Amino acid sequence: MTEHYRPDDSMRRPRFASGPRTFMRLPYIADPMTATGRIDVAVVGVPTDSAVGYRSGARFGPEAIRSASILLRDHNPETGVDVTRLSMIDAGDAPVVPGYHDLTLERLEAHLRPFYERGVLPLLLGGDHSLVMAEMRALAAVHGPVSVVHFDAHGDVLDDYYGVKHFHGTMFRRGVEEGVVDPSRSVQAGMRGSVHPEDVGSAEALGYEVIRWRELARMDPEEFGRRVRARVGDRPVMLSFDIDFVDPAYAPGTGTPEVGGPDSHRTLELLRALGPLDYRGIDIVEVSPPYDHSHITSHLASVVAFELLGQVAAVRRPDAAATTHTGSLT
Amino acid sequence: MTEHYRPDDSMRRPRFASGPRTFMRLPYIADPMTATGRIDVAVVGVPTDSAVGYRSGARFGPEAIRSASILLRDHNPETGVDVTRLSMIDAGDAPVVPGYHDLTLERLEAHLRPFYERGVLPLLLGGDHSLVMAEMRALAAVHGPVSVVHFDAHGDVLDDYYGVKHFHGTMFRRGVEEGVVDPSRSVQAGMRGSVHPEDVGSAEALGYEVIRWRELARMDPEEFGRRVRARVGDRPVMLSFDIDFVDPAYAPGTGTPEVGGPDSHRTLELLRALGPLDYRGIDIVEVSPPYDHSHITSHLASVVAFELLGQVAAVRRPDAAATTHTGSLT
Amino acid sequence: MTEHYRPDDSMRRPRFASGPRTFMRLPYIADPMTATGRIDVAVVGVPTDSAVGYRSGARFGPEAIRSASILLRDHNPETGVDVTRLSMIDAGDAPVVPGYHDLTLERLEAHLRPFYERGVLPLLLGGDHSLVMAEMRALAAVHGPVSVVHFDAHGDVLDDYYGVKHFHGTMFRRGVEEGVVDPSRSVQAGMRGSVHPEDVGSAEALGYEVIRWRELARMDPEEFGRRVRARVGDRPVMLSFDIDFVDPAYAPGTGTPEVGGPDSHRTLELLRALGPLDYRGIDIVEVSPPYDHSHITSHLASVVAFELLGQVAAVRRPDAAATTHTGSLT
Amino acid sequence: MTEHYRPDDSMRRPRFASGPRTFMRLPYIADPMTATGRIDVAVVGVPTDSAVGYRSGARFGPEAIRSASILLRDHNPETGVDVTRLSMIDAGDAPVVPGYHDLTLERLEAHLRPFYERGVLPLLLGGDHSLVMAEMRALAAVHGPVSVVHFDAHGDVLDDYYGVKHFHGTMFRRGVEEGVVDPSRSVQAGMRGSVHPEDVGSAEALGYEVIRWRELARMDPEEFGRRVRARVGDRPVMLSFDIDFVDPAYAPGTGTPEVGGPDSHRTLELLRALGPLDYRGIDIVEVSPPYDHSHITSHLASVVAFELLGQVAAVRRPDAAATTHTGSLT
Amino acid sequence: MTEHYRPDDSMRRPRFASGPRTFMRLPYIADPMTATGRIDVAVVGVPTDSAVGYRSGARFGPEAIRSASILLRDHNPETGVDVTRLSMIDAGDAPVVPGYHDLTLERLEAHLRPFYERGVLPLLLGGDHSLVMAEMRALAAVHGPVSVVHFDAHGDVLDDYYGVKHFHGTMFRRGVEEGVVDPSRSVQAGMRGSVHPEDVGSAEALGYEVIRWRELARMDPEEFGRRVRARVGDRPVMLSFDIDFVDPAYAPGTGTPEVGGPDSHRTLELLRALGPLDYRGIDIVEVSPPYDHSHITSHLASVVAFELLGQVAAVRRPDAAATTHTGSLT
Amino acid sequence: MTEHYRPDDSMRRPRFASGPRTFMRLPYIADPMTATGRIDVAVVGVPTDSAVGYRSGARFGPEAIRSASILLRDHNPETGVDVTRLSMIDAGDAPVVPGYHDLTLERLEAHLRPFYERGVLPLLLGGDHSLVMAEMRALAAVHGPVSVVHFDAHGDVLDDYYGVKHFHGTMFRRGVEEGVVDPSRSVQAGMRGSVHPEDVGSAEALGYEVIRWRELARMDPEEFGRRVRARVGDRPVMLSFDIDFVDPAYAPGTGTPEVGGPDSHRTLELLRALGPLDYRGIDIVEVSPPYDHSHITSHLASVVAFELLGQVAAVRRPDAAATTHTGSLT
Repeated sequence: MTEHYRPDDSMRRPRFASGPRTFMRLPYIADPMTATGRIDVAVVGVPTDSAVGYRSGARFGPEAIRSASILLRDHNPETGVDVTRLSMIDAGDAPVVPGYHDLTLERLEAHLRPFYERGVLPLLLGGDHSLVMAEMRALAAVHGPVSVVHFDAHGDVLDDYYGVKHFHGTMFRRGVEEGVVDPSRSVQAGMRGSVHPEDVGSAEALGYEVIRWRELARMDPEEFGRRVRARVGDRPVMLSFDIDFVDPAYAPGTGTPEVGGPDSHRTLELLRALGPLDYRGIDIVEVSPPYDHSHITSHLASVVAFELLGQVAAVRRPDAAATTHTGSLT
Repeated sequence: MTEHYRPDDSMRRPRFASGPRTFMRLPYIADPMTATGRIDVAVVGVPTDSAVGYRSGARFGPEAIRSASILLRDHNPETGVDVTRLSMIDAGDAPVVPGYHDLTLERLEAHLRPFYERGVLPLLLGGDHSLVMAEMRALAAVHGPVSVVHFDAHGDVLDDYYGVKHFHGTMFRRGVEEGVVDPSRSVQAGMRGSVHPEDVGSAEALGYEVIRWRELARMDPEEFGRRVRARVGDRPVMLSFDIDFVDPAYAPGTGTPEVGGPDSHRTLELLRALGPLDYRGIDIVEVSPPYDHSHITSHLASVVAFELLGQVAAVRRPDAAATTHTGSLT
Repeated sequence: MTEHYRPDDSMRRPRFASGPRTFMRLPYIADPMTATGRIDVAVVGVPTDSAVGYRSGARFGPEAIRSASILLRDHNPETGVDVTRLSMIDAGDAPVVPGYHDLTLERLEAHLRPFYERGVLPLLLGGDHSLVMAEMRALAAVHGPVSVVHFDAHGDVLDDYYGVKHFHGTMFRRGVEEGVVDPSRSVQAGMRGSVHPEDVGSAEALGYEVIRWRELARMDPEEFGRRVRARVGDRPVMLSFDIDFVDPAYAPGTGTPEVGGPDSHRTLELLRALGPLDYRGIDIVEVSPPYDHSHITSHLASVVAFELLGQVAAVRRPDAAATTHTGSLT
Repeated sequence: MTEHYRPDDSMRRPRFASGPRTFMRLPYIADPMTATGRIDVAVVGVPTDSAVGYRSGARFGPEAIRSASILLRDHNPETGVDVTRLSMIDAGDAPVVPGYHDLTLERLEAHLRPFYERGVLPLLLGGDHSLVMAEMRALAAVHGPVSVVHFDAHGDVLDDYYGVKHFHGTMFRRGVEEGVVDPSRSVQAGMRGSVHPEDVGSAEALGYEVIRWRELARMDPEEFGRRVRARVGDRPVMLSFDIDFVDPAYAPGTGTPEVGGPDSHRTLELLRALGPLDYRGIDIVEVSPPYDHSHITSHLASVVAFELLGQVAAVRRPDAAATTHTGSLT
Repeated sequence: MTEHYRPDDSMRRPRFASGPRTFMRLPYIADPMTATGRIDVAVVGVPTDSAVGYRSGARFGPEAIRSASILLRDHNPETGVDVTRLSMIDAGDAPVVPGYHDLTLERLEAHLRPFYERGVLPLLLGGDHSLVMAEMRALAAVHGPVSVVHFDAHGDVLDDYYGVKHFHGTMFRRGVEEGVVDPSRSVQAGMRGSVHPEDVGSAEALGYEVIRWRELARMDPEEFGRRVRARVGDRPVMLSFDIDFVDPAYAPGTGTPEVGGPDSHRTLELLRALGPLDYRGIDIVEVSPPYDHSHITSHLASVVAFELLGQVAAVRRPDAAATTHTGSLT
Repeated sequence: MTEHYRPDDSMRRPRFASGPRTFMRLPYIADPMTATGRIDVAVVGVPTDSAVGYRSGARFGPEAIRSASILLRDHNPETGVDVTRLSMIDAGDAPVVPGYHDLTLERLEAHLRPFYERGVLPLLLGGDHSLVMAEMRALAAVHGPVSVVHFDAHGDVLDDYYGVKHFHGTMFRRGVEEGVVDPSRSVQAGMRGSVHPEDVGSAEALGYEVIRWRELARMDPEEFGRRVRARVGDRPVMLSFDIDFVDPAYAPGTGTPEVGGPDSHRTLELLRALGPLDYRGIDIVEVSPPYDHSHITSHLASVVAFELLGQVAAVRRPDAAATTHTGSLT
């Protein structure tokens, strides 16, 4: 029978004694394409932080989220899902080239594509948000233009910075221009804060549905879930979660903090309300450990990952007894 | 007339010039059993942090809470209670033996018992949560099985860790097994986050009433108060407050942070709604200063203590003019 | 045509490459009285921190808020106001004399008065709250007794500390006594936490309207705005924002943290609800950088400033096409 | 027989379980003038930080040094002295008035004088350096002009700051002017770093012997001791130790860091070389905890205190068997 | 041919993109006893921190040292040794039981013994120093009483703490009593700071050679090396390096900091001077990350490990061409 | 007469009240090419941090060094030089393009060249070390191949990283290849730590003189000065100071810390020993504020700048009375 990968047991030895930090104490398989067991989800670190307009430091995001994630346990009592129904591994980090963003995007796209081709869901741990350009390109190469569900304080649809086109604030404009995103099937949620004058209304002009935080703050999570599902339908979904969606009191360790945002409880409720979506790509980005304290941002990021994995498990492994799954890497 | 112990006056000299930090600038009496004045409440530090599954550091919790508490003033305008109606002292720290948890529990129980026997309420400043095993044993020796009102992100009813039975996640199972807690008269509130599969439903199975945070988040504080009072009735109460009940944005300095929790305002509102209970034991635990910043966790812990002391004062000293009280240490 | 001062363009070069940190990347004009352009608003640092009862450190508040403010962009999408309608400069710091509070108040009043005389709104970045004594005196010298709209966890109406009358907890009593504040046209909002017994009801006794945080927590922001406008009417307003109004989870870097307060989203909503007031003085105080982490308090303070500047712009520059304004420094 | 005050035994219970932090776990006696036992040394906190030209925060110096000092043990193996030969207490904090430096000096002088009059050596824990003005005045009132042995990166002999005469950089000029210091019997050691042009040679002009750090770096500690003893002779000595004497790598938590200074080992060797002096006053100042990390500055300050207490013990209690001593408070 | 384990190449992808942090980017082999390649050295984390008398936190030492060690490169230019001559792996963490020190020692001894039996050198990353009790027992079971070369600020030869015999300050007394250490062939170096009176001369009384830091500070490193070699001879050596040997300016992240110690350059020079010893056990202990800043302590610990591995390589793999080695795990 | 630019007077108002932080409280002139006064030295921030192999964060180096530098005073008592003999300004920051290193080098070279052409010495505040590629190119365009005096723990002469040629570890190889550096007239000092095998001896092979830290540690500073002067002669000199030259205890806030290095006192002594050189370019790089604490690294960097400015002043303005100087920007 095919091997099922699961976390090390923290009741047998202390979680802080689990050796090198892998995501959720999962097995580390540096070359997942040759693994013998089934892989539903592969966690991939993407330690970029070059193409950013304010604070750097996100290159240590994957390490910090892995470190915090050792506290995660298998079962989610709010949703009744045991995420270890999914066979999961930690696949290490993607190649990046600090200071050379275009080169990074190239290598990253090449690194990610085999996962999508084999039906493995890579859960990307950033790194700054600019990495999604490669994620979208690789996804679109396999699935066509993707639906994006985008949690963020910023729309990231600016045109250029200092004369360059690929930056951590331009990807969702570039994605539309390149045809790798379908904005008519995509939602942006959580935007707030001061903006450049040319940025006003620009995401809507590109075709995105935008739910600003001020509106979302008053919206019932279930209503939010319905709006997302209505927009997305049964399209392959890339969920992109920028940790600055959450208020800096909860997520200080980030590159471009934006005060006045949601708390962590509401954030998790919104994620839980998403309901069944056909997740093909997930990224959690902009955790910048040098600006964190006591890993609170990393802990939050790890729990966001946990909730999203639960959503995936509910769809992909609805019955824990199921032991085979077309499209997994076996 | 019997001496009434009260805080040093911070309007006469700056609070930061109050000398060695005692809780709330109270008199320090190392051996309260020989004190000449009346003692309603004795603050006792219990600096344990050995038997914990994630972060240590709580051994410096008593020092940090004392340091923050110098900011407390006498009067609570929300409830109209002046806590200095209670005659209070700082009784220093309890003996502990780091690395030897069973020995710590023995010595701690012996240290606490005389307080309960004399009707003095010891307000315990932890230290990690495992210390309540001694508190429950000492309380039960005097009052029989106690009612526990337990604020926490975790139920702490697991059976064992790595083969040991006394740990900071097992006390409320052990307490039932040992007969020192009456779960049918006890409430746990605030639980959330991922759990071990075997932990699902286990507190309820032991007989506890459990109000998870997700339910509590939508509950009116008054309704919460009614449920607690209905459960507890007029039983002797031990209130156990694990600071990780509150979200890590508000309480980062703790051993096992659990994101997605309440804010500080709501926390205080819930405490204020408790109403008259027959408090016999109070502990505030899991403040881990090495993981705190700018003492925000310690400040919160000191205000939680202040609110609880106000609850005690309202019951024990309803009329400030009253100068004698059966059951105090005089 | 008169020059209009505006921020450096952060899309042309990175905001972190904008040279010496001025507020919002505005031009620095050390001697604004001789400036050739129009000045609607002059940002003035007031680095006091001597006369405080708990933590010092606010002397580095102006530097830290300037540093965080480089992230601000021109447009406020929540209110539709572009704050750069206002011609704004950074006017450097006011003279202070650490350790000599009375001397500081004298020099500060003399420094501020020319701004008020010329109709320039100085946005004061504290420094501890005691600086408002000079602000009120200078404002009253030009405009008569001012209406104060005061956001704070503390009322600051105590009579004396250790025998001295001017301190960061006495200004709003002194202001009434000196006749520079009109309490009947003033509002205090956000008070909470433990108090000295003599402090109970004292602000109301002086004539202030007080909206404690517990009440405000349940109030619709629009209702709050109506109450403030009804109280203030068309009087010249001094808005004083003590950052400890906000909960320490959001504003840890402050001198006298008070847990149990509002979050940043609600804080901004309350400010947005204020509506048209005749602002003549604004101060944002008690940011203490040594107790901050990752500048989250400074970021919040800079956004509070941004929201208030938007309020000013809406009143003073309702039509962006307007290029002249009586009462500005031209 | 007269009681001898000594530290709590850290082998009986953990040092971190010693209750409210007193210096070296000594008994806390708030009113030493009424103590029944003999007192050789009284530790007094002096939490000033107002009259300083750069960073504040030293008001929490006494608390932090007390906290670190719980690690001190009785015996000094380098010198063979057991400091507990001295009967020592913690006498709490002196009254100070933040923001009102002149008033602080008055109250502090009045607070200290009774100690000197009774022959008790107060070991002052600052607070910023400006406090020595009161120390010198009180000492001179009892002993006449004192010999100062001054360790510091700065000479503190400037004339005024912003028009004020008493500040943390002017005391050793003021002391000469007021006749409370005898510069011809005093030594300054450790000066370095950039200076104001008018400061060049000014200490020598006042009559002090100055040994700059650059010279001291090459000097044998024994030679240094000889020079100090030759200068001081048998005069009553006030030893003033500004923690910024040491390099900021070793003492980052200070108000005016000066790079390029001594390490901690050399610092202790210099203190050990001082030899028998007639200590009447000792202060350790400018520890600013908000700028410290992991208490390394406070630990160093506590060990400096320990070495100096050993010097005092060697002179005052040369024979441990001696149980009486003229001039102690009995 | 047998596989030789070596670090991931940091010139091919960034060292911060090397995936889960293993020591020096080495392969992680959780069960080394079944490995197919040769193993000269296995890095083993031992995350204890219970039985300590001051600060805890060392349980995160292995994680932090691994994190810092990714900066290490292969070649040591000071000694001309390429440490990758040794075939090395990261073997994860040993089982520990927080709060139950005796149980921890049992399990740890059982975990370590197979390494020694197979001739693999386990490089232990602590954890607090108490872990060496298990190391000594396991080593002695294989090799008889060991020679200890012990770098530390403290001798760790006390008899008991609070009534318990196994603690982080008693091991080198216990080791002699149990006959697992040969003190006549052992050296302790670096001792300094205040001590308990009963501790004076006690290590020498047990038979150890002690070179206090004050003596070592004046000793030529080569002379130190000669003394160690003369003492140790050709005995199997356990080198135990407590990071508090180094001054807290260089190693703030530790449990019992002792000021006045060596700098890092001198520390490395002393290690380099040791010369050829028959290393059978190495441990680097007392790194406590919650008290570190910017990982400077962990970086130092990783370089201490690197220097010691170089010493091992020079002895065990004198000729890089050699491809087999008796006593390695093959 | 031509204006002479000098710092704001810190005795007239507190240095912390000097408004927006410019280097040493100098006037800020954003466009120095149009300045009316003479300019000997222009301080230029170069906030790069993209092309680095370990930690980022140096983009905030210029801000942090400016902040710390407000503590600098005019006169250097060790050398007798008043640096304000030089007419100096702060010229703000150079344009950089994060994530696009080649573009950054282009724009930076264009930005710097006018300074060199006009004989103004730009003191560059990094930013990571990769910026020197632009500095060398711009200097060579004006002066021909430059002599480099390079203080660093690393030689920065590697050939490529991950396939790219311009990185913060390759510049001094590239400089030789491009002919903008004359290695036969250049010195590298301070190298230490582990290296890649291919790095051994590579700087010498390129023609550099290399004085490793281990050798330098034993060398008299005067001897070091002689060796540098002998090597450099009267060539135009670019002095490049990587803050990681100094041990991380003194300079923790850096990108690639290397333990075992010099302390700050020795560092300053080495700089003072350099003697008269024809400085044309100076850079101080690799200060990474997110990894600093209490600005100790920035303080050190500012004092390194101060010492070097003193060296420049001694050569360029030997007589303070001189008021004109060929080659300055007038």
